[in-house]
Amino acid sequence: MAEQKTHEQIFVITALKAWEQWQGRATKFFDSLSDEQMLQEIARGKNRPIYLLGHLIAVNDAMIPQLRLGEASYAGLWDTFVTKADRAVTDLPPISELRENWKKLNAHLDAQFKLLSPIQWLERHSTVSDDDFAREQHRNRLAILLSRTSHLSYHLGQLMLLNK
Amino acid sequence: MAEQKTHEQIFVITALKAWEQWQGRATKFFDSLSDEQMLQEIARGKNRPIYLLGHLIAVNDAMIPQLRLGEASYAGLWDTFVTKADRAVTDLPPISELRENWKKLNAHLDAQFKLLSPIQWLERHSTVSDDDFAREQHRNRLAILLSRTSHLSYHLGQLMLLNK
Repeated sequence: MAEQKTHEQIFVITALKAWEQWQGRATKFFDSLSDEQMLQEIARGKNRPIYLLGHLIAVNDAMIPQLRLGEASYAGLWDTFVTKADRAVTDLPPISELRENWKKLNAHLDAQFKLLSPIQWLERHSTVSDDDFAREQHRNRLAILLSRTSHLSYHLGQLMLLNK
Repeated sequence: MAEQKTHEQIFVITALKAWEQWQGRATKFFDSLSDEQMLQEIARGKNRPIYLLGHLIAVNDAMIPQLRLGEASYAGLWDTFVTKADRAVTDLPPISELRENWKKLNAHLDAQFKLLSPIQWLERHSTVSDDDFAREQHRNRLAILLSRTSHLSYHLGQLMLLNK
């Protein structure tokens, strides 16, 4: 029952709802694109949806190690979709495979997120030292989730400019 | 001292840091544009930065009544920059005035946000009824802040496509 939730639980639920909302919007958008549209640039000389899909998979997947929850599943995509710019790599994975990776990753993230207690969300993320974290307690797992939520909406805003 | 903060305080600080970070990035971007660039469309037929600046002022300002913290200061911008599309209104406020509004609004929002206790952030926002809120406690003030943070990054992603 909602009445029995602690304040700490409600903070986490609120942040996870925001994540799920943007994740759902992005999924709906990618699902609405044909494979041909996935290869059409958003604006002249700008990224293509296929690149941004790979980029979002790589960046969101990297949350797993950043949250100290294990290993990334799609680390092989980082170089193509984060380090390098769109079109720098011509040999991209098939679009169908990226679509599948996106769905599997989202299910995996959601399952992992549900395992963390509110207090665990406030523990440090992997790229802050214990010493720095003692001084800056906002550099916690929740900060990673909020940052990746807004990173997702940042790129969804760009994707919405595509002339469909 | 960081050591003395409650968990509830840290949740709020983390969310406010995320808001401040995107707000700062947007300010830096708008400050980097000349008045001429403010009138240049992001991509062919898409919004101009002047429109998105007015849009962000109107939407972020509307947080004040949504958070039940008082009246909006720039409600007069809503029709031009939210209800209507870019270029539907030709008589826009001067760019210098919008730039000034943006800075004043951000200072006002930050001051108002600091007055809320963690428990007050978990109170209902203005567009949910008491009955609905009893069942859905994530429809709180914090949800509005997280939503507007990602709305800001959504449009900043678009602005970054401008050919400067």
